[in-house]
Amino acid sequence: MTIRAIVFDAYGTLYDVQSVRSLATELCGGKGELVTQLWRLKQLEYSWLRSLMGDYEDFWPVTRAALEFSLRSVGVEPDPSICDPLMHKYLSLDLHDEARQALDQMSEHKLAILSNGSPMMLDALVVSSGVADLFTDIISVDRAKAFKPDPACYALVEVALGVRPEEVLFVSSNGFDVAGAKRFGFRVAWIERAQGMLAPANSDVGPAEFYRLMRGGEEQLGHQADHRVARLTELAPLLARLGASS
Amino acid sequence: MTIRAIVFDAYGTLYDVQSVRSLATELCGGKGELVTQLWRLKQLEYSWLRSLMGDYEDFWPVTRAALEFSLRSVGVEPDPSICDPLMHKYLSLDLHDEARQALDQMSEHKLAILSNGSPMMLDALVVSSGVADLFTDIISVDRAKAFKPDPACYALVEVALGVRPEEVLFVSSNGFDVAGAKRFGFRVAWIERAQGMLAPANSDVGPAEFYRLMRGGEEQLGHQADHRVARLTELAPLLARLGASS
Repeated sequence: MTIRAIVFDAYGTLYDVQSVRSLATELCGGKGELVTQLWRLKQLEYSWLRSLMGDYEDFWPVTRAALEFSLRSVGVEPDPSICDPLMHKYLSLDLHDEARQALDQMSEHKLAILSNGSPMMLDALVVSSGVADLFTDIISVDRAKAFKPDPACYALVEVALGVRPEEVLFVSSNGFDVAGAKRFGFRVAWIERAQGMLAPANSDVGPAEFYRLMRGGEEQLGHQADHRVARLTELAPLLARLGASS
Repeated sequence: MTIRAIVFDAYGTLYDVQSVRSLATELCGGKGELVTQLWRLKQLEYSWLRSLMGDYEDFWPVTRAALEFSLRSVGVEPDPSICDPLMHKYLSLDLHDEARQALDQMSEHKLAILSNGSPMMLDALVVSSGVADLFTDIISVDRAKAFKPDPACYALVEVALGVRPEEVLFVSSNGFDVAGAKRFGFRVAWIERAQGMLAPANSDVGPAEFYRLMRGGEEQLGHQADHRVARLTELAPLLARLGASS
């Protein structure tokens, strides 16, 4: 089956969710690293839980609630003087180092984003990082009022791009997203950013490594990626081998 | 509205999910603490993700998959010689210290369990801990083929016990479960086991404290408990104040 569109996850895949760290450290001192890791884990949890509870609200207040939980958890009052700048940073996260080059290499293909982000968040992200023009569509799960891996989210792609699931190469670094996309019926490439990292020697791991251990491995959810690559720049050669349509 | 039934969450509320630690340390050496924390966090994640993906399987294989992920993540092969005894321990988790006394204090009320556990797992738990006779019903979410906080799980209580949601006092130490139960319409008591614990001084926290920071606080999911208590033994006086029916 010919690949007719390449659809990217945003947070963690194109954009580095760890790029809030320096600001978090500036604002929270020695607790910045801890806040960085708790925030991302809680943000994902809250997206799953709200979707599962049937109590959707968009990713902006979900992200804010996760930040406020994380700050309180470590004993920092979630004042606007701390929350506002951190939330603002989420609108201009850094692209992963190789993302711009990788997208340029694939520019003859139909490219899109399918993300948990709200339309406002995603618009701000692609504009601030200068890649808005590279995508045919920026699809927010907000159109489905659910979060990934709810199948209703992945179903938005066919409506938006006019391509069938088996004609999509879905690209994500997030293991749960890989499983959800694969279960839905996409061909899936997993950007395995933790590839080659060493296992810990013992239980003495800090928050950044704990985060990596939680999120870096292949999820045991019964659905495996079709392709595993370490970096986004490995996708263009993969597409050439697969004979994707331009 | 009179309380006509008290319904307990099992894992973390009546039973101590941390009681796998000593066996994990025996089997995994210095990585035992890390495995203990990753396992529980992943077990919850997998329950939410499978329910959200529409790909339910019962809590026994979900718990096993979470264990296998956690072991691989820290560089331990998930051989049966390690997995089988740890899974077996999940069938005989320790009751929290005060649980037996608290249940005895409430024995004139209609008591039940509503848990993510499979029927097999829950039967084994209540038998091994000697409390099977105290409950009118042991309700597994397996009847709904979904995991908490999916509302379909909480809806099982009315069918099983013949009581309306507003006549139920639901008891859980798990913040997500508190939110889901409250959203569904139960009166909810949160067993706040982390109450009074100190915030960390900086980011230098190990896995046990990271787990507590992730799971101990009040979840920011838009639904708050009606009652907050530190221990299960505070429930009997609460019921007396509420005028619960015997």
